[in-house]
Amino acid sequence: MPKRSPTSTGTSKSEPPYESPIPTKPQGGTHSIRDIIAKKRDGDELTREEIARVVLGAVRGDVPDYQVSAWLMACFLRGLTPAETLALTEIMAQSGEQLDLSALPSPALDKHSTGGVGDKTSLVVVPLLAAAGITVVKMSGRGLGFTGGTVDKLESIPGYRTALRADEMLTIARQVGCCLAGQSEQLVPADKKLYALRDATATIESIPLIAASIMSKKLAGGAAHILLDVKVGEGAFMTDIERARELARTLIAIGQGAGRKVRALLTDMSQPLGYTVGNALEVREAIETLTPGGRFSPRFRELCLRLAAAGLHLCGLEPDEESGYARARQLLDSGEALHKFRQMVQAHGGDTRVVDNPDLLPQAPIQHTLRAKPSGYIARLHPRTMAWAAVQMGAGRQRKEDTIDHAVGIEVLKAVGDPVQPGEPLLRIHARTEAQLQAIVPMLNEAVVISPQPVSPIPVVLEQMG
Amino acid sequence: MPKRSPTSTGTSKSEPPYESPIPTKPQGGTHSIRDIIAKKRDGDELTREEIARVVLGAVRGDVPDYQVSAWLMACFLRGLTPAETLALTEIMAQSGEQLDLSALPSPALDKHSTGGVGDKTSLVVVPLLAAAGITVVKMSGRGLGFTGGTVDKLESIPGYRTALRADEMLTIARQVGCCLAGQSEQLVPADKKLYALRDATATIESIPLIAASIMSKKLAGGAAHILLDVKVGEGAFMTDIERARELARTLIAIGQGAGRKVRALLTDMSQPLGYTVGNALEVREAIETLTPGGRFSPRFRELCLRLAAAGLHLCGLEPDEESGYARARQLLDSGEALHKFRQMVQAHGGDTRVVDNPDLLPQAPIQHTLRAKPSGYIARLHPRTMAWAAVQMGAGRQRKEDTIDHAVGIEVLKAVGDPVQPGEPLLRIHARTEAQLQAIVPMLNEAVVISPQPVSPIPVVLEQMG
Repeated sequence: MPKRSPTSTGTSKSEPPYESPIPTKPQGGTHSIRDIIAKKRDGDELTREEIARVVLGAVRGDVPDYQVSAWLMACFLRGLTPAETLALTEIMAQSGEQLDLSALPSPALDKHSTGGVGDKTSLVVVPLLAAAGITVVKMSGRGLGFTGGTVDKLESIPGYRTALRADEMLTIARQVGCCLAGQSEQLVPADKKLYALRDATATIESIPLIAASIMSKKLAGGAAHILLDVKVGEGAFMTDIERARELARTLIAIGQGAGRKVRALLTDMSQPLGYTVGNALEVREAIETLTPGGRFSPRFRELCLRLAAAGLHLCGLEPDEESGYARARQLLDSGEALHKFRQMVQAHGGDTRVVDNPDLLPQAPIQHTLRAKPSGYIARLHPRTMAWAAVQMGAGRQRKEDTIDHAVGIEVLKAVGDPVQPGEPLLRIHARTEAQLQAIVPMLNEAVVISPQPVSPIPVVLEQMG
Repeated sequence: MPKRSPTSTGTSKSEPPYESPIPTKPQGGTHSIRDIIAKKRDGDELTREEIARVVLGAVRGDVPDYQVSAWLMACFLRGLTPAETLALTEIMAQSGEQLDLSALPSPALDKHSTGGVGDKTSLVVVPLLAAAGITVVKMSGRGLGFTGGTVDKLESIPGYRTALRADEMLTIARQVGCCLAGQSEQLVPADKKLYALRDATATIESIPLIAASIMSKKLAGGAAHILLDVKVGEGAFMTDIERARELARTLIAIGQGAGRKVRALLTDMSQPLGYTVGNALEVREAIETLTPGGRFSPRFRELCLRLAAAGLHLCGLEPDEESGYARARQLLDSGEALHKFRQMVQAHGGDTRVVDNPDLLPQAPIQHTLRAKPSGYIARLHPRTMAWAAVQMGAGRQRKEDTIDHAVGIEVLKAVGDPVQPGEPLLRIHARTEAQLQAIVPMLNEAVVISPQPVSPIPVVLEQMG
């Protein structure tokens, strides 16, 4: 028999089922990519090799964007199995440079938050864990849309360098115990490639694709322990607890499948986190929270302590969460965490004077206070409204090419459940111009809802997984 | 209130649900295309305007391929409603030049076959209908894979020009009554664009997309009456009668939705159609079938007559199919259809001497007969095996850049159900070289199955719809 079997219908799938113009695209080279797309389209499980052909081909530019985006849509609509998700993540993680933390003191931990309004948790938790002897090399993103990015916040600190090469990160981590920088360009090029296509083709919101994107960067970051803060509520990307749980489960499964120790906290984002929204304001809040006897939001401090407790337990430095919590509180109260933060700022080239005097951070020229009209209890502090108001003043980006005004933002002077009297301050707006201020006052007046009845706030930590 | 509502989540869908690299693709201009993709992704019905934005943007090059292919995959997996399918088809039809048949004698009819092994039906039916006074301007495709294309067959006739401009087609149709040419480059550029992307992204086999592709060309072809031959069986693209029915229903709905009169025959392709597979051989068979008293395959002649009867009735030239059938038979038997064929060949610049002497068609140097071993009844004549054997000799294209050898092919000397005696000829191979011949003899020996029991063939016309 000749080698090419004419009755095999293996090739017939790719033929036109009708008289049609002859395709003008090259076929031969892309034929097997088409078969991989078809396999996912039909809901079958792809092998690791098949996923690698698409993803690494996309990074190299061998597989054209139109095939990658069709594949992504098929993945979006058909889903990915746990094995596919793990394979995709590992392939992405290995698509570029990877951090080697083996020469640094162990245990090493990495942390990720899915992002929320006013989320400056890393600024507190990273130095706190480093103060306990954990090596933390954390790379963060920039903000886009209604959530801020840790990198933008850090850049409020005069001189703080976030764009570091991998070897610079390792040097800082060896010297200080922690490094908090931007995402290295060399790490996980597959994520940049796939994310840009997903953004253009409405394939962002797939849990396996989201999880692979997040975890590929954590795997490439090299830490054996991964601490996840999965946020849920109006001020987070996920507003539905079931989807947040599914994301957390997926993230944990990937991490464990890749041989890492993982813990995830599901945390509430139904109100802004802490008392500030805006870059320099959030750095100020982090410093105040780290400062013994300083001002703090009980909710935010509680979240930082719970995350740190989970990290200490996960790394085996504490026998359980309770002792971890106590240890974390002691590191905060003793000023050791603040000391570590100061060392980290210095190692990054930042001006450490801001640690003792946050007034040296950028300040907006205009401050305006919104006050309560009726008495009652704070029922809602709509986090997205506040975030968009801050973005509109320049605290964040509506488009990626926008520049940031680090000084502007909003102080949130009450939390959900707090009683208020008429005339009491609710929000303090830090604006660059009067026009900015006037543009956002009406929406901020609607962002605070006061109820005549007492209101019980939702706890900041909802669940713990992993 | 400011114009941009911050609590509107209209934009939040497109934001990253996690800290992520900032997208590197342009956003602004493609934003609403992304929303259209997302809408289809979620299974919602698109408006005509939304479909037009994607399809016409793709043709103009404003919408990048990666967005078009993600949209196509979403259409593939979510399906299209009848209204979407009609809108897509009409938008495609209007994407380029359209034939205006209004100056030609009416009625005007167009015909389409979904393609099958040995399908030379248009070569008989088009001149037959023209002989009855119907104007037929039919554009056909080239072959790819196991089915041949009418254009390739016509080019077996020395001098026959298939690459015509629209005005040349109209001139020939006015002069002769029919024109049988290749697809004009200017008609339906949207189909060329979408088909090439579908071919590369495994999104060919969607009934609404297939139907839109077929019918967009028929609508642009301008005829008020459309006759469809939807083939089903091993020798066709659709092997499942239910899918073929669904395709036929979709084609009819589009045509009627666009104000055309449509009839579809579901016809059997479980064995090769007629007694030849290969370009010049099929032209010879068409001429012999058109020639009064000539050789013919009863199955093939029956299909031609049934299609012509349906066309005559559809156009209102005959009160019912029975009288249409009688009229069609009379046009064949009288030689009027052959006369029209000769006129058509002449108008296309072809050598009309082949009509009287088909030996002038290209002939292969080697002829080899395969003979029956046992006696019995023909149970199977695997059409795909024969087609691939012919393609392997050069009768068709394995890839679009392959050239065609018009002379090679296979004569199928028996039909399913025929009794055979040991030593009787079954197939006659027309080959270019001995090596070719030797390569395909084993597969052709397996292509014919002889049963000791009598076998009833499946009727050639299975169902009629519309």
